[in-house]
Amino acid sequence: MAQGKAPETVVRRIPRYYRYLEDLFLMGRDRVSSQELAGRMGLTASQIRQDLNCFGGFGQQGYGYNVAELRRELARILGLGELYRLIIIGAGNIGQALANYHGFDKDGFEVLAAFDSAPDRVGTRLSGGVMVHAMNDLEAFLAQNHTDVAVVATPRDSAQDVADRLFAAGVHFVWNFAPADVTAPEGCHVENVQLTDSLLMLSYRARGFGRARE
Amino acid sequence: MAQGKAPETVVRRIPRYYRYLEDLFLMGRDRVSSQELAGRMGLTASQIRQDLNCFGGFGQQGYGYNVAELRRELARILGLGELYRLIIIGAGNIGQALANYHGFDKDGFEVLAAFDSAPDRVGTRLSGGVMVHAMNDLEAFLAQNHTDVAVVATPRDSAQDVADRLFAAGVHFVWNFAPADVTAPEGCHVENVQLTDSLLMLSYRARGFGRARE
Repeated sequence: MAQGKAPETVVRRIPRYYRYLEDLFLMGRDRVSSQELAGRMGLTASQIRQDLNCFGGFGQQGYGYNVAELRRELARILGLGELYRLIIIGAGNIGQALANYHGFDKDGFEVLAAFDSAPDRVGTRLSGGVMVHAMNDLEAFLAQNHTDVAVVATPRDSAQDVADRLFAAGVHFVWNFAPADVTAPEGCHVENVQLTDSLLMLSYRARGFGRARE
Repeated sequence: MAQGKAPETVVRRIPRYYRYLEDLFLMGRDRVSSQELAGRMGLTASQIRQDLNCFGGFGQQGYGYNVAELRRELARILGLGELYRLIIIGAGNIGQALANYHGFDKDGFEVLAAFDSAPDRVGTRLSGGVMVHAMNDLEAFLAQNHTDVAVVATPRDSAQDVADRLFAAGVHFVWNFAPADVTAPEGCHVENVQLTDSLLMLSYRARGFGRARE
């Protein structure tokens, strides 16, 4: 697939396709139909065929997709054959949880270090063994250690400032968990994870079930 | 707005609209144009007007939206005037981080308890003060304590089983952080938060920047 050619909405579905193909692969399945994928993805079979055509078109009419082949191709598209160096800014609840997250290794992300401005955190190690450095040492660290991705798990008011320091110091990719959207300059990229947004989707669905607030 | 009438893609944007309106409100702004909202949301001004028409239509041609009024209406649509009781299943990294998350209070979610099957966690309190109960006591707890929302932060293989126990015991809403999508029966609802999906979006963007994996 020529990167950048698939529409953004299709691109955002690739990780889910990959997860389902991984499940099928681990179950030992050889082939999967667009109908079955459609059921799993909540799309129509024709949307599935359109999506997968964007990535190269692996299906054969009436025969379905080869699970191992499609999984391998999706992994390649997702850049899973590479190793990315990652740091974590903010060693609070979320930062610590991510530092200890075991899925990073599997997906090719190596956690180099964490950074925090709280004096009682600096110089300690998180339970997974990652060292917490002082925020003041960020630029010096980045000059010495090539870093591809930074997790921003700071309070909302410092998120953009921290991201700007990262971009200026040569980090191209930011995974932002602060409760404020961060923007990236040309050539850089942010994934804003707004945990509160999905919580608010739940309160939207739950409306009328809760008690009235005082 | 008649709930259920707005398309799902529009509904999913409501939390972001609300966040932006909250920012503007806190900055003391009186009015906002659809052009400005469009810039913030990454949509066109005409999409903004269409979206907000789904919620009742507050704008006046050439005059923009009243910030306080639109914020209040979005809060009402999001069910933010109510208090929801929440439990957390799985007191690992993510479960603990969420139990200590301070945004719950503000959004009307009260954390009642956590549950875990690891004997060394049961009977302890998380750093925020939430008590960890045994998984075996889940149904007895739910029979005694009305619970609106459950966070599922278990390993992937137990997520659906745990969710099924929750639904059977009368919990209608699940916020799932396990790395496997969970499905809900009719009348119940799941928000699947796939942290890995946004990580894979970063490796997709970062493809070619990392080192080749051995």
